[in-house]
Amino acid sequence: MSELPPLILVTNDDGVHAPGLFALAKAMKTLRGGDVEVVVIAPDRERSAVGHALTMHRPLFCEELREGVYAINGTPTDCVAIGVKKILRRRPVLLASGINRGGNLGDDITYSGTVSAAVEGTLIGIPSIAVSIDGSSHLHYADTGRVAAIVAAHVLERGLPPDTLLNVNAPNIPWDEFKGIRFTGQGKRTYDDAIQEVADPRGRAHYWLGGGTPIFQGGEETDIHAVAQGFVSVTPLHLDLTNYDALRMIETDWAEMTQLKP
Amino acid sequence: MSELPPLILVTNDDGVHAPGLFALAKAMKTLRGGDVEVVVIAPDRERSAVGHALTMHRPLFCEELREGVYAINGTPTDCVAIGVKKILRRRPVLLASGINRGGNLGDDITYSGTVSAAVEGTLIGIPSIAVSIDGSSHLHYADTGRVAAIVAAHVLERGLPPDTLLNVNAPNIPWDEFKGIRFTGQGKRTYDDAIQEVADPRGRAHYWLGGGTPIFQGGEETDIHAVAQGFVSVTPLHLDLTNYDALRMIETDWAEMTQLKP
Repeated sequence: MSELPPLILVTNDDGVHAPGLFALAKAMKTLRGGDVEVVVIAPDRERSAVGHALTMHRPLFCEELREGVYAINGTPTDCVAIGVKKILRRRPVLLASGINRGGNLGDDITYSGTVSAAVEGTLIGIPSIAVSIDGSSHLHYADTGRVAAIVAAHVLERGLPPDTLLNVNAPNIPWDEFKGIRFTGQGKRTYDDAIQEVADPRGRAHYWLGGGTPIFQGGEETDIHAVAQGFVSVTPLHLDLTNYDALRMIETDWAEMTQLKP
Repeated sequence: MSELPPLILVTNDDGVHAPGLFALAKAMKTLRGGDVEVVVIAPDRERSAVGHALTMHRPLFCEELREGVYAINGTPTDCVAIGVKKILRRRPVLLASGINRGGNLGDDITYSGTVSAAVEGTLIGIPSIAVSIDGSSHLHYADTGRVAAIVAAHVLERGLPPDTLLNVNAPNIPWDEFKGIRFTGQGKRTYDDAIQEVADPRGRAHYWLGGGTPIFQGGEETDIHAVAQGFVSVTPLHLDLTNYDALRMIETDWAEMTQLKP
Protein backbone atom coordinates (compact mmCIF):
# COMPACT_ATOMS: atom_id res chain seq x y z
CA MET A 1 0.00 0.00 0.00
CA SER A 2 1.65 3.22 -1.12
CA GLU A 3 1.45 6.27 1.09
CA LEU A 4 0.31 9.57 -0.43
CA PRO A 5 3.11 12.11 -0.81
CA PRO A 6 3.14 15.17 1.44
CA LEU A 7 0.85 17.95 0.22
CA ILE A 8 2.04 21.51 -0.43
CA LEU A 9 -0.44 24.34 -0.93
CA VAL A 10 0.61 27.23 -3.19
CA THR A 11 -1.28 30.53 -3.35
CA ASN A 12 -0.64 34.21 -4.08
CA ASP A 13 -2.29 37.62 -4.34
CA ASP A 14 -1.49 38.41 -7.96
CA GLY A 15 -4.15 35.93 -9.07
CA VAL A 16 -4.32 32.41 -10.43
CA HIS A 17 -2.93 33.36 -13.84
CA ALA A 18 0.21 35.12 -12.57
CA PRO A 19 3.57 33.76 -13.75
CA GLY A 20 5.06 33.98 -10.25
CA LEU A 21 2.47 31.51 -8.99
CA PHE A 22 3.51 28.88 -11.48
CA ALA A 23 7.21 29.47 -10.90
CA LEU A 24 6.59 28.85 -7.21
CA ALA A 25 4.48 25.74 -7.81
CA LYS A 26 7.17 24.40 -10.15
CA ALA A 27 9.89 25.02 -7.56
CA MET A 28 7.84 23.30 -4.84
CA LYS A 29 7.47 20.22 -7.07
CA THR A 30 11.24 19.69 -6.85
CA LEU A 31 11.13 19.16 -3.08
CA ARG A 32 11.91 15.73 -1.62
CA GLY A 33 13.23 14.68 -5.01
CA GLY A 34 9.77 15.24 -6.48
CA ASP A 35 7.93 13.10 -3.91
CA VAL A 36 5.36 15.79 -3.11
CA GLU A 37 1.91 16.77 -4.31
CA VAL A 38 1.51 20.47 -5.10
CA VAL A 39 -1.96 22.05 -5.26
CA VAL A 40 -2.57 25.66 -6.31
CA ILE A 41 -5.56 27.53 -4.82
CA ALA A 42 -5.42 31.21 -5.65
CA PRO A 43 -7.63 34.27 -6.18
CA ASP A 44 -9.40 34.38 -9.54
CA ARG A 45 -7.86 37.80 -10.19
CA GLU A 46 -5.36 40.24 -8.77
CA ARG A 47 -5.90 40.99 -5.08
CA SER A 48 -2.86 43.05 -4.23
CA ALA A 49 -2.75 45.22 -1.11
CA VAL A 50 -5.82 43.55 0.35
CA GLY A 51 -4.03 42.93 3.65
CA HIS A 52 -5.49 40.13 5.72
CA ALA A 53 -9.00 40.66 4.37
CA LEU A 54 -11.65 37.98 4.78
CA THR A 55 -14.71 38.08 2.53
CA MET A 56 -17.74 37.84 4.80
CA HIS A 57 -20.41 39.80 2.91
CA ARG A 58 -20.92 37.49 -0.08
CA PRO A 59 -20.58 33.78 -0.88
CA LEU A 60 -17.40 32.41 -2.38
CA PHE A 61 -17.08 29.93 -5.21
CA CYS A 62 -14.20 27.61 -6.00
CA GLU A 63 -13.56 26.53 -9.57
CA GLU A 64 -11.15 23.76 -10.55
CA LEU A 65 -9.40 25.18 -13.62
CA ARG A 66 -7.43 22.02 -14.27
CA GLU A 67 -6.07 19.20 -12.15
CA GLY A 68 -4.53 20.61 -9.00
CA VAL A 69 -5.29 24.26 -9.85
CA TYR A 70 -8.26 26.03 -8.25
CA ALA A 71 -9.51 29.63 -8.42
CA ILE A 72 -11.62 31.30 -5.73
CA ASN A 73 -13.40 34.64 -6.21
CA GLY A 74 -11.93 36.05 -3.00
CA THR A 75 -8.81 37.20 -1.22
CA PRO A 76 -5.63 35.21 -0.54
CA THR A 77 -6.85 34.74 3.05
CA ASP A 78 -10.15 33.33 1.74
CA CYS A 79 -8.22 30.93 -0.50
CA VAL A 80 -6.18 29.53 2.38
CA ALA A 81 -9.15 29.22 4.74
CA ILE A 82 -11.46 27.54 2.21
CA GLY A 83 -8.64 25.62 0.58
CA VAL A 84 -7.44 23.94 3.73
CA LYS A 85 -10.85 23.36 5.30
CA LYS A 86 -13.00 22.56 2.26
CA ILE A 87 -11.02 21.77 -0.90
CA LEU A 88 -7.92 19.81 0.05
CA ARG A 89 -8.50 16.22 1.05
CA ARG A 90 -5.59 16.12 3.47
CA ARG A 91 -3.69 18.66 5.51
CA PRO A 92 -0.79 20.44 3.78
CA VAL A 93 2.65 20.15 5.35
CA LEU A 94 3.60 23.54 3.91
CA LEU A 95 1.98 26.65 2.51
CA ALA A 96 3.96 28.76 0.01
CA SER A 97 2.57 32.14 -1.07
CA GLY A 98 3.93 34.03 -4.07
CA ILE A 99 6.07 34.62 -5.99
CA ASN A 100 4.85 38.18 -5.60
CA ARG A 101 5.59 40.72 -8.28
CA GLY A 102 7.22 43.34 -6.06
CA GLY A 103 8.98 43.18 -2.72
CA ASN A 104 7.14 42.83 0.58
CA LEU A 105 9.60 44.66 2.75
CA GLY A 106 9.48 46.74 5.91
CA ASP A 107 6.12 48.09 6.99
CA ASP A 108 4.61 47.29 3.58
CA ILE A 109 3.99 43.76 4.80
CA THR A 110 0.94 44.98 6.73
CA TYR A 111 -0.78 45.66 3.38
CA SER A 112 0.43 42.50 1.69
CA GLY A 113 -1.94 39.82 0.50
CA THR A 114 1.05 37.55 -0.13
CA VAL A 115 2.19 37.75 3.48
CA SER A 116 -1.40 37.58 4.76
CA ALA A 117 -1.92 34.23 3.07
CA ALA A 118 1.08 32.96 5.05
CA VAL A 119 -0.38 34.55 8.20
CA GLU A 120 -3.64 32.65 7.64
CA GLY A 121 -1.70 29.41 7.07
CA THR A 122 0.19 29.99 10.30
CA LEU A 123 -3.05 30.73 12.18
CA ILE A 124 -4.39 27.33 11.19
CA GLY A 125 -1.13 25.65 12.13
CA ILE A 126 0.54 25.06 8.76
CA PRO A 127 4.23 26.05 8.35
CA SER A 128 4.09 28.93 5.87
CA ILE A 129 6.40 31.03 3.74
CA ALA A 130 5.75 34.17 1.69
CA VAL A 131 7.99 34.75 -1.33
CA SER A 132 8.46 38.00 -3.28
CA ILE A 133 10.80 39.52 -5.86
CA ASP A 134 11.79 43.11 -5.29
CA GLY A 135 11.28 44.32 -8.83
CA SER A 136 8.49 45.24 -11.22
CA SER A 137 9.53 44.02 -14.68
CA HIS A 138 11.70 41.33 -16.28
CA LEU A 139 11.38 39.35 -13.09
CA HIS A 140 13.69 36.42 -12.41
CA TYR A 141 10.97 34.07 -11.21
CA ALA A 142 12.87 30.83 -11.76
CA ASP A 143 15.85 32.08 -9.76
CA THR A 144 13.69 33.17 -6.87
CA GLY A 145 11.86 29.84 -7.15
CA ARG A 146 15.17 28.03 -6.58
CA VAL A 147 15.68 30.04 -3.41
CA ALA A 148 12.13 29.33 -2.30
CA ALA A 149 12.79 25.60 -2.70
CA ILE A 150 15.89 25.82 -0.50
CA VAL A 151 13.99 27.69 2.21
CA ALA A 152 11.01 25.34 1.93
CA ALA A 153 13.27 22.28 2.24
CA HIS A 154 14.63 23.68 5.51
CA VAL A 155 11.11 24.32 6.80
CA LEU A 156 10.00 20.78 5.91
CA GLU A 157 13.05 19.29 7.58
CA ARG A 158 13.24 21.43 10.71
CA GLY A 159 9.83 23.04 11.17
CA LEU A 160 9.22 26.60 12.29
CA PRO A 161 8.83 28.10 15.77
CA PRO A 162 5.19 28.37 16.94
CA ASP A 163 3.07 31.13 15.39
CA THR A 164 5.95 32.12 13.11
CA LEU A 165 6.18 32.39 9.32
CA LEU A 166 9.03 33.26 6.99
CA ASN A 167 8.93 36.31 4.73
CA VAL A 168 11.33 35.73 1.85
CA ASN A 169 12.34 38.56 -0.51
CA ALA A 170 14.78 38.17 -3.38
CA PRO A 171 16.48 40.94 -5.32
CA ASN A 172 15.55 40.83 -9.00
CA ILE A 173 18.83 39.38 -10.25
CA PRO A 174 19.87 36.04 -11.74
CA TRP A 175 20.85 33.14 -9.48
CA ASP A 176 24.58 33.57 -10.02
CA GLU A 177 24.43 37.13 -8.77
CA PHE A 178 22.72 36.37 -5.45
CA LYS A 179 25.24 37.07 -2.70
CA GLY A 180 23.58 34.56 -0.39
CA ILE A 181 20.76 34.55 2.16
CA ARG A 182 20.55 36.93 5.11
CA PHE A 183 18.29 36.41 8.10
CA THR A 184 16.84 39.82 8.84
CA GLY A 185 14.42 41.92 10.89
CA GLN A 186 11.59 43.98 9.41
CA GLY A 187 12.78 47.42 8.32
CA LYS A 188 10.80 50.59 7.90
CA ARG A 189 9.56 52.00 4.64
CA THR A 190 7.57 55.14 4.17
CA TYR A 191 6.18 56.71 1.03
CA ASP A 192 6.62 60.27 0.01
CA ASP A 193 3.60 61.76 -1.73
CA ALA A 194 1.89 58.38 -2.05
CA ILE A 195 -1.51 59.86 -2.92
CA GLN A 196 -2.18 61.34 -6.34
CA GLU A 197 -4.97 63.90 -6.49
CA VAL A 198 -6.66 64.25 -9.89
CA ALA A 199 -9.82 65.95 -11.13
CA ASP A 200 -12.42 63.71 -12.76
CA PRO A 201 -14.11 64.79 -16.05
CA ARG A 202 -16.60 66.85 -14.02
CA GLY A 203 -13.84 68.59 -12.07
CA ARG A 204 -14.39 66.66 -8.87
CA ALA A 205 -11.25 65.73 -6.93
CA HIS A 206 -10.44 62.06 -6.70
CA TYR A 207 -7.51 60.23 -5.22
CA TRP A 208 -5.28 57.36 -6.31
CA LEU A 209 -3.34 55.50 -3.67
CA GLY A 210 -0.16 53.54 -4.06
CA GLY A 211 2.02 55.89 -6.06
CA GLY A 212 4.87 57.79 -4.56
CA THR A 213 8.51 57.10 -3.98
CA PRO A 214 9.46 54.68 -1.22
CA ILE A 215 11.83 56.01 1.42
CA PHE A 216 13.89 53.28 2.98
CA GLN A 217 14.91 53.27 6.59
CA GLY A 218 16.66 50.35 8.05
CA GLY A 219 20.04 49.33 9.37
CA GLU A 220 22.17 46.53 8.06
CA GLU A 221 20.12 43.97 9.94
CA THR A 222 16.92 44.72 7.99
CA ASP A 223 15.13 43.06 5.07
CA ILE A 224 15.33 46.27 3.03
CA HIS A 225 19.06 46.60 3.39
CA ALA A 226 19.76 42.93 2.63
CA VAL A 227 17.83 42.99 -0.65
CA ALA A 228 19.40 46.29 -1.67
CA GLN A 229 22.81 44.64 -1.19
CA GLY A 230 21.96 41.67 -3.43
CA PHE A 231 21.10 39.18 -0.68
CA VAL A 232 17.93 37.16 -0.36
CA SER A 233 16.22 38.28 2.85
CA VAL A 234 14.50 35.76 5.13
CA THR A 235 12.57 37.38 8.01
CA PRO A 236 10.77 35.34 10.68
CA LEU A 237 7.48 37.10 11.47
CA HIS A 238 5.17 36.23 14.32
CA LEU A 239 1.48 36.66 14.89
CA ASP A 240 1.73 38.16 18.37
CA LEU A 241 1.79 41.92 17.83
CA THR A 242 2.07 42.73 21.53
CA ASN A 243 4.81 45.24 22.29
CA TYR A 244 5.92 43.63 25.56
CA ASP A 245 8.40 46.41 26.37
CA ALA A 246 5.60 48.96 26.05
CA LEU A 247 3.33 46.69 28.11
CA ARG A 248 5.81 46.66 31.00
CA MET A 249 6.20 50.42 30.71
CA ILE A 250 2.49 51.31 30.85
CA GLU A 251 1.87 48.73 33.58
CA THR A 252 4.16 50.84 35.74
CA ASP A 253 3.70 54.36 34.45
CA TRP A 254 -0.04 54.29 33.79
CA ALA A 255 -0.97 52.22 36.84
CA GLU A 256 -3.35 54.78 38.29
CA MET A 257 -5.50 54.55 35.15
CA THR A 258 -6.51 50.97 35.84
CA GLN A 259 -9.01 51.78 38.56
CA LEU A 260 -11.32 53.81 36.28
CA LYS A 261 -13.10 55.17 39.33
CA PRO A 262 -11.91 57.86 41.73
CA MET B 1 -4.60 85.77 18.13
CA SER B 2 -6.25 82.54 19.23
CA GLU B 3 -4.54 79.21 18.58
CA LEU B 4 -6.50 76.44 16.91
CA PRO B 5 -7.39 73.59 19.28
CA PRO B 6 -5.64 70.22 18.83
CA LEU B 7 -7.21 68.09 16.12
CA ILE B 8 -8.45 64.54 16.70
CA LEU B 9 -9.31 62.24 13.79
CA VAL B 10 -12.02 59.63 14.34
CA THR B 11 -12.63 56.74 11.95
CA ASN B 12 -13.95 53.17 11.98
CA ASP B 13 -14.68 50.15 9.80
CA ASP B 14 -18.41 49.84 10.44
CA GLY B 15 -19.02 52.85 8.20
CA VAL B 16 -19.81 56.53 8.58
CA HIS B 17 -23.37 55.93 9.76
CA ALA B 18 -22.49 53.52 12.59
CA PRO B 19 -23.58 54.51 16.11
CA GLY B 20 -20.21 53.49 17.58
CA LEU B 21 -18.46 56.10 15.44
CA PHE B 22 -20.56 58.90 16.86
CA ALA B 23 -20.21 57.65 20.42
CA LEU B 24 -16.44 57.76 19.95
CA ALA B 25 -16.48 61.22 18.36
CA LYS B 26 -18.68 62.48 21.21
CA ALA B 27 -16.32 61.03 23.80
CA MET B 28 -13.28 62.58 22.09
CA LYS B 29 -14.99 66.01 22.20
CA THR B 30 -14.83 65.90 26.02
CA LEU B 31 -11.01 65.83 26.02
CA ARG B 32 -9.08 68.82 27.38
CA GLY B 33 -12.31 70.19 28.81
CA GLY B 34 -13.71 70.41 25.30
CA ASP B 35 -10.78 72.36 23.83
CA VAL B 36 -10.32 70.02 20.87
CA GLU B 37 -11.53 69.81 17.29
CA VAL B 38 -12.87 66.39 16.29
CA VAL B 39 -13.16 65.42 12.63
CA VAL B 40 -14.74 62.17 11.42
CA ILE B 41 -13.45 60.58 8.19
CA ALA B 42 -14.86 57.10 7.73
CA PRO B 43 -15.78 54.55 5.04
CA ASP B 44 -19.07 55.26 3.27
CA ARG B 45 -20.30 51.79 4.23
CA GLU B 46 -19.35 48.79 6.32
CA ARG B 47 -15.82 47.54 5.68
CA SER B 48 -15.43 44.92 8.37
CA ALA B 49 -12.71 42.27 8.16
CA VAL B 50 -10.88 44.16 5.43
CA GLY B 51 -7.59 43.96 7.32
CA HIS B 52 -5.05 46.59 6.34
CA ALA B 53 -6.37 46.82 2.79
CA LEU B 54 -5.44 49.78 0.61
CA THR B 55 -7.56 50.53 -2.46
CA MET B 56 -5.18 50.87 -5.37
CA HIS B 57 -7.25 49.69 -8.34
CA ARG B 58 -9.81 52.50 -8.51
CA PRO B 59 -10.02 56.19 -7.60
CA LEU B 60 -11.41 57.26 -4.25
CA PHE B 61 -13.82 60.10 -3.57
CA CYS B 62 -14.34 62.02 -0.36
CA GLU B 63 -17.71 63.55 0.41
CA GLU B 64 -18.32 66.05 3.22
CA LEU B 65 -21.64 64.88 4.67
CA ARG B 66 -21.85 67.75 7.13
CA GLU B 67 -19.38 69.94 8.96
CA GLY B 68 -16.54 67.81 10.27
CA VAL B 69 -17.92 64.52 8.93
CA TYR B 70 -16.51 63.01 5.73
CA ALA B 71 -17.20 59.72 3.92
CA ILE B 72 -14.74 57.98 1.58
CA ASN B 73 -15.67 55.07 -0.72
CA GLY B 74 -12.79 52.97 0.55
CA THR B 75 -11.32 51.08 3.46
CA PRO B 76 -10.44 52.41 6.93
CA THR B 77 -6.78 52.48 5.84
CA ASP B 78 -7.74 54.57 2.79
CA CYS B 79 -9.64 56.98 5.06
CA VAL B 80 -6.65 57.56 7.32
CA ALA B 81 -4.17 57.94 4.46
CA ILE B 82 -6.32 60.34 2.43
CA GLY B 83 -7.73 62.05 5.51
CA VAL B 84 -4.39 62.98 7.00
CA LYS B 85 -2.63 63.84 3.75
CA LYS B 86 -5.41 65.43 1.71
CA ILE B 87 -8.48 66.41 3.76
CA LEU B 88 -7.35 67.68 7.15
CA ARG B 89 -5.79 71.12 7.16
CA ARG B 90 -3.48 70.36 10.08
CA ARG B 91 -1.92 67.26 11.56
CA PRO B 92 -4.03 65.35 14.12
CA VAL B 93 -2.56 64.84 17.58
CA LEU B 94 -4.55 61.61 17.96
CA LEU B 95 -6.36 59.06 15.84
CA ALA B 96 -9.22 57.10 17.42
CA SER B 97 -10.77 54.20 15.50
CA GLY B 98 -14.09 52.63 16.51
CA ILE B 99 -16.13 52.04 18.50
CA ASN B 100 -16.26 48.69 16.75
CA ARG B 101 -19.33 46.53 17.04
CA GLY B 102 -17.62 43.36 18.25
CA GLY B 103 -14.35 42.70 20.04
CA ASN B 104 -10.99 42.80 18.30
CA LEU B 105 -9.23 40.27 20.47
CA GLY B 106 -6.43 37.75 20.04
CA ASP B 107 -5.46 36.81 16.52
CA ASP B 108 -8.66 38.37 15.14
CA ILE B 109 -6.87 41.71 15.10
CA THR B 110 -5.06 40.68 11.91
CA TYR B 111 -8.41 40.83 10.09
CA SER B 112 -9.61 44.00 11.76
CA GLY B 113 -10.28 47.17 9.82
CA THR B 114 -10.65 49.00 13.14
CA VAL B 115 -7.16 48.05 14.27
CA SER B 116 -5.74 48.57 10.77
CA ALA B 117 -6.86 52.20 10.78
CA ALA B 118 -4.81 52.64 13.96
CA VAL B 119 -1.91 50.81 12.30
CA GLU B 120 -2.05 53.28 9.38
CA GLY B 121 -2.17 56.22 11.81
CA THR B 122 0.87 54.83 13.62
CA LEU B 123 2.72 54.31 10.31
CA ILE B 124 2.32 57.99 9.53
CA GLY B 125 3.41 58.97 13.03
CA ILE B 126 0.11 59.83 14.74
CA PRO B 127 -0.58 58.36 18.21
CA SER B 128 -3.48 55.98 17.59
CA ILE B 129 -5.98 53.91 19.51
CA ALA B 130 -8.49 51.28 18.34
CA VAL B 131 -11.63 50.85 20.43
CA SER B 132 -14.09 47.93 20.35
CA ILE B 133 -16.95 46.49 22.39
CA ASP B 134 -16.98 42.75 22.81
CA GLY B 135 -20.65 42.20 22.07
CA SER B 136 -23.05 42.14 19.15
CA SER B 137 -26.30 43.72 20.34
CA HIS B 138 -27.55 46.24 22.91
CA LEU B 139 -24.08 47.73 22.93
CA HIS B 140 -23.03 50.12 25.69
CA TYR B 141 -21.37 52.63 23.39
CA ALA B 142 -21.47 55.58 25.78
CA ASP B 143 -19.81 53.57 28.55
CA THR B 144 -17.04 52.38 26.26
CA GLY B 145 -16.74 55.96 24.99
CA ARG B 146 -16.01 57.12 28.55
CA VAL B 147 -13.21 54.57 28.78
CA ALA B 148 -11.87 55.64 25.38
CA ALA B 149 -11.71 59.24 26.63
CA ILE B 150 -9.68 58.17 29.67
CA VAL B 151 -7.23 56.21 27.53
CA ALA B 152 -7.02 59.01 24.95
CA ALA B 153 -6.33 61.58 27.68
CA HIS B 154 -3.38 59.48 28.82
CA VAL B 155 -2.08 59.20 25.29
CA LEU B 156 -2.35 62.97 24.74
CA GLU B 157 -0.58 63.67 28.00
CA ARG B 158 2.16 61.05 27.86
CA GLY B 159 2.49 59.95 24.26
CA LEU B 160 3.06 56.38 23.09
CA PRO B 161 6.26 54.42 22.50
CA PRO B 162 7.51 54.53 18.87
CA ASP B 163 5.61 52.43 16.32
CA THR B 164 3.10 51.38 18.98
CA LEU B 165 -0.69 51.71 19.13
CA LEU B 166 -3.23 50.79 21.79
CA ASN B 167 -5.93 48.20 21.16
CA VAL B 168 -8.78 48.86 23.60
CA ASN B 169 -11.57 46.32 24.13
CA ALA B 170 -14.43 46.78 26.59
CA PRO B 171 -16.84 44.12 27.78
CA ASN B 172 -20.42 44.97 26.84
CA ILE B 173 -21.55 46.06 30.31
CA PRO B 174 -22.53 49.39 31.86
CA TRP B 175 -19.88 51.69 33.30
CA ASP B 176 -20.62 50.78 36.92
CA GLU B 177 -19.93 47.12 36.21
CA PHE B 178 -16.47 47.61 34.68
CA LYS B 179 -13.96 46.09 37.08
CA GLY B 180 -11.22 48.42 35.85
CA ILE B 181 -8.63 48.47 33.11
CA ARG B 182 -6.07 45.71 32.56
CA PHE B 183 -2.95 46.10 30.42
CA THR B 184 -2.72 42.89 28.46
CA GLY B 185 -0.94 40.88 25.75
CA GLN B 186 -2.61 39.54 22.61
CA GLY B 187 -4.27 36.18 23.22
CA LYS B 188 -5.14 33.47 20.75
CA ARG B 189 -8.55 32.82 19.27
CA THR B 190 -9.43 30.14 16.79
CA TYR B 191 -12.73 29.35 15.12
CA ASP B 192 -14.30 25.97 14.97
CA ASP B 193 -16.15 25.28 11.74
CA ALA B 194 -15.87 28.89 10.57
CA ILE B 195 -16.86 28.10 6.98
CA GLN B 196 -20.44 27.31 6.04
CA GLU B 197 -20.90 25.27 2.87
CA VAL B 198 -24.24 25.76 1.12
CA ALA B 199 -25.61 24.78 -2.28
CA ASP B 200 -26.80 27.63 -4.53
CA PRO B 201 -30.15 27.37 -6.41
CA ARG B 202 -28.39 25.40 -9.16
CA GLY B 203 -26.81 22.98 -6.71
CA ARG B 204 -23.32 24.43 -6.91
CA ALA B 205 -21.40 24.55 -3.63
CA HIS B 206 -20.62 27.95 -2.24
CA TYR B 207 -18.97 29.04 0.97
CA TRP B 208 -19.67 31.67 3.61
CA LEU B 209 -16.85 32.75 5.85
CA GLY B 210 -17.04 34.22 9.31
CA GLY B 211 -19.45 31.89 11.05
CA GLY B 212 -18.38 29.39 13.63
CA THR B 213 -17.82 29.40 17.33
CA PRO B 214 -14.75 31.16 18.69
CA ILE B 215 -12.44 29.07 20.82
CA PHE B 216 -10.52 31.14 23.31
CA GLN B 217 -7.01 30.40 24.37
CA GLY B 218 -5.18 32.76 26.59
CA GLY B 219 -3.82 33.02 30.08
CA GLU B 220 -4.74 35.63 32.64
CA GLU B 221 -2.41 38.14 31.04
CA THR B 222 -4.33 38.23 27.72
CA ASP B 223 -6.89 40.60 26.22
CA ILE B 224 -9.41 37.77 25.86
CA HIS B 225 -9.23 36.80 29.50
CA ALA B 226 -9.43 40.38 30.79
CA VAL B 227 -12.60 41.16 28.83
CA ALA B 228 -14.20 37.87 29.85
CA GLN B 229 -13.60 38.86 33.47
CA GLY B 230 -15.29 42.25 33.11
CA PHE B 231 -12.15 44.35 32.68
CA VAL B 232 -11.41 46.78 29.89
CA SER B 233 -8.36 45.44 28.03
CA VAL B 234 -5.65 47.80 26.76
CA THR B 235 -2.99 46.06 24.63
CA PRO B 236 0.04 47.88 23.20
CA LEU B 237 0.65 46.55 19.67
CA HIS B 238 3.66 47.31 17.55
CA LEU B 239 4.30 47.38 13.84
CA ASP B 240 7.47 45.31 13.89
CA LEU B 241 6.34 41.72 13.34
CA THR B 242 9.86 40.29 13.51
CA ASN B 243 10.12 37.30 15.81
CA TYR B 244 13.54 38.15 17.21
CA ASP B 245 13.82 34.93 19.21
CA ALA B 246 13.23 32.95 16.03
CA LEU B 247 15.69 35.18 14.18
CA ARG B 248 18.44 34.35 16.67
CA MET B 249 17.55 30.68 16.44
CA ILE B 250 17.69 30.39 12.64
CA GLU B 251 20.81 32.55 12.46
CA THR B 252 22.51 29.78 14.41
CA ASP B 253 20.71 26.62 13.35
CA TRP B 254 20.21 27.41 9.68
CA ALA B 255 23.58 29.08 9.13
CA GLU B 256 24.70 26.72 6.38
CA MET B 257 21.71 27.79 4.26
CA THR B 258 22.98 31.33 3.87
CA GLN B 259 25.64 30.49 1.30
CA LEU B 260 23.16 29.25 -1.32
CA LYS B 261 26.07 27.73 -3.22
CA PRO B 262 27.97 24.55 -2.42
